[in-house]
Amino acid sequence: MSNAAATIRASAADLARRLDLCLAEAGASEASRGACVAALLHASRLGVDSHGARLVVHYAEVLREGRVNGDPQLRVTRTGAATAVVDGDDGLGHFAAYRAAREAVDLAKEAGVGAVGVVRSSHFGAAGAYAKAVADAGMVGFATTNSDSAVALFGGAAPFHGTNPLAFAAPSGGERPWLLDMATSSIPFNRVFLYRTLGLELPEGVAADGDGAPTRDARATEMLLPAGGPEFGFKGAGLAGVATVLSAVLQGMAIDPAMLPMAGEAVDKRTPRGMGHFVLAIDPACFGGAAVFEAGMRSYLAALRGAPARPGESVMAPGDREWRTERERERDGIPVDPETARFLGLDR
Amino acid sequence: MSNAAATIRASAADLARRLDLCLAEAGASEASRGACVAALLHASRLGVDSHGARLVVHYAEVLREGRVNGDPQLRVTRTGAATAVVDGDDGLGHFAAYRAAREAVDLAKEAGVGAVGVVRSSHFGAAGAYAKAVADAGMVGFATTNSDSAVALFGGAAPFHGTNPLAFAAPSGGERPWLLDMATSSIPFNRVFLYRTLGLELPEGVAADGDGAPTRDARATEMLLPAGGPEFGFKGAGLAGVATVLSAVLQGMAIDPAMLPMAGEAVDKRTPRGMGHFVLAIDPACFGGAAVFEAGMRSYLAALRGAPARPGESVMAPGDREWRTERERERDGIPVDPETARFLGLDR
Repeated sequence: MSNAAATIRASAADLARRLDLCLAEAGASEASRGACVAALLHASRLGVDSHGARLVVHYAEVLREGRVNGDPQLRVTRTGAATAVVDGDDGLGHFAAYRAAREAVDLAKEAGVGAVGVVRSSHFGAAGAYAKAVADAGMVGFATTNSDSAVALFGGAAPFHGTNPLAFAAPSGGERPWLLDMATSSIPFNRVFLYRTLGLELPEGVAADGDGAPTRDARATEMLLPAGGPEFGFKGAGLAGVATVLSAVLQGMAIDPAMLPMAGEAVDKRTPRGMGHFVLAIDPACFGGAAVFEAGMRSYLAALRGAPARPGESVMAPGDREWRTERERERDGIPVDPETARFLGLDR
Repeated sequence: MSNAAATIRASAADLARRLDLCLAEAGASEASRGACVAALLHASRLGVDSHGARLVVHYAEVLREGRVNGDPQLRVTRTGAATAVVDGDDGLGHFAAYRAAREAVDLAKEAGVGAVGVVRSSHFGAAGAYAKAVADAGMVGFATTNSDSAVALFGGAAPFHGTNPLAFAAPSGGERPWLLDMATSSIPFNRVFLYRTLGLELPEGVAADGDGAPTRDARATEMLLPAGGPEFGFKGAGLAGVATVLSAVLQGMAIDPAMLPMAGEAVDKRTPRGMGHFVLAIDPACFGGAAVFEAGMRSYLAALRGAPARPGESVMAPGDREWRTERERERDGIPVDPETARFLGLDR
């Protein structure tokens, strides 16, 4: 890339230290910022830069403005033999969500499956971080959240759902886990911003103008379209609803159109957003058995990766691209955009 | 439609009676065929004709040939406080799957959430039937199955995953439930067959020729493409994997490319297919509470249905189209295609 010279690279350890320092200065407690740094590094290491280190600028601002509680006292309430609710006390969402993942694993160890809701939370970064935390404990993980309106309904003329991610992960027998972390829109809004800067045309059927009419013009884009494209967007819209039902309706938290927007000039950064999340852990020991599952994942992934590809293409399991990026970034460092690098003092 | 005169319509009660009789004649026990009839009518009433009454022709054949056990003895094993495995004894998949849904609800009543695997099963019809069964019991339901290879991987040149459905349902406070029952391919293979007959062009990015190259020619189509289309098909392929991981790998059952094909001239119809399924039930009482959930679903659905639509379009919640069809078919009867009508004796 032509601006490669301007991109600063940092080691994961250095980046973690600087993120921690910035969040501490913004008033986040050691425990809550530790979770946030872990989630940001998860994304930054894997190449999910939209949900990586750059978010620290936003988190520091909302910590300072008061929307996010710097010293949250999490309350975990077990509500059934396999269920719990984590009250995030309006702290950094990563803190509550990692706690929920741990609780889901603990419940699943006892009951075979664990389902944990999170209430009174905030933006939690990449959903995949929490699904992966469950997989790292040897279980099948699922994590989701809803978010503020950005995506039209199928046939809709206004933003309704957020980009509502669904993240699934499964241990793969010693290798990096199978990891699917997907927005239920085709693209994130960050891609629109990037394409505006670069003057590029968006793919067909992923964005719409202010009336909901599909457009490929990034400058005219005012909302996203649900995954599935112009004819099958009802699938993406339905899946966005899965995130909303589990994260908001089931937890008694704000649905997407009622949620305070995350960012923007005019946005209230003092009032907590009352976000909900949902995390699930499933213990393979209570189904076919841990050994069967491990062997099965190996054989499934071997079959998938060995499947014939079209000329010039390759077939990959969910996560494979991310693990490759992780290896590259371990070797070369993590690229940090200029604004974030400045904020973190990486340019000095 | 021009062939409306040729379409025979039957009441749900008459159709149920005839389906039951045909399955009895093919050797299915009262309990197993009762579940099958319920699942077929779920689909036929809601307009999901690909998974409705027409499947009886196939089920009767595989019951007669021996692939499907006409007198399955289900074995339900509780494996944790919130988990169980249903052994389908190679009977009709609907029998095992409805049993799994009931077990998941019972477990969730005790533990807050219930996760049930199904092993040694067979084709179970529409996944939505089992998610809806959970919702009808007042809980959030999820049901999935994998199926034999029909869909290319993203970038792939051969069928790998099946059309692997994901079905979610949630009670909606007295109204018909919120119900999302989606294949993880854009279209089902039946649409290809239909378009071949009608000489119509397929939508872009939903089907491929024998080399995996996208085609709009139904006659040239040899595999489907994953939901998400030409640029975002990794999402559909990843979601198909969710079905495979939960239904096959977690249960120790056959993954999609290893599964005996469902149909076709040369297919072995004597050997059980060893299919797995997965059903989940989540009790709102263990999260925000049943009343909060009910009020939340009402308000979410009101907001969604009231969202502005593009000119000439309408916005709908998942299931709304199906419930409208159900009302129409209650009034007008269920249309049955000529072959199935003949098979059921509806033409006499």
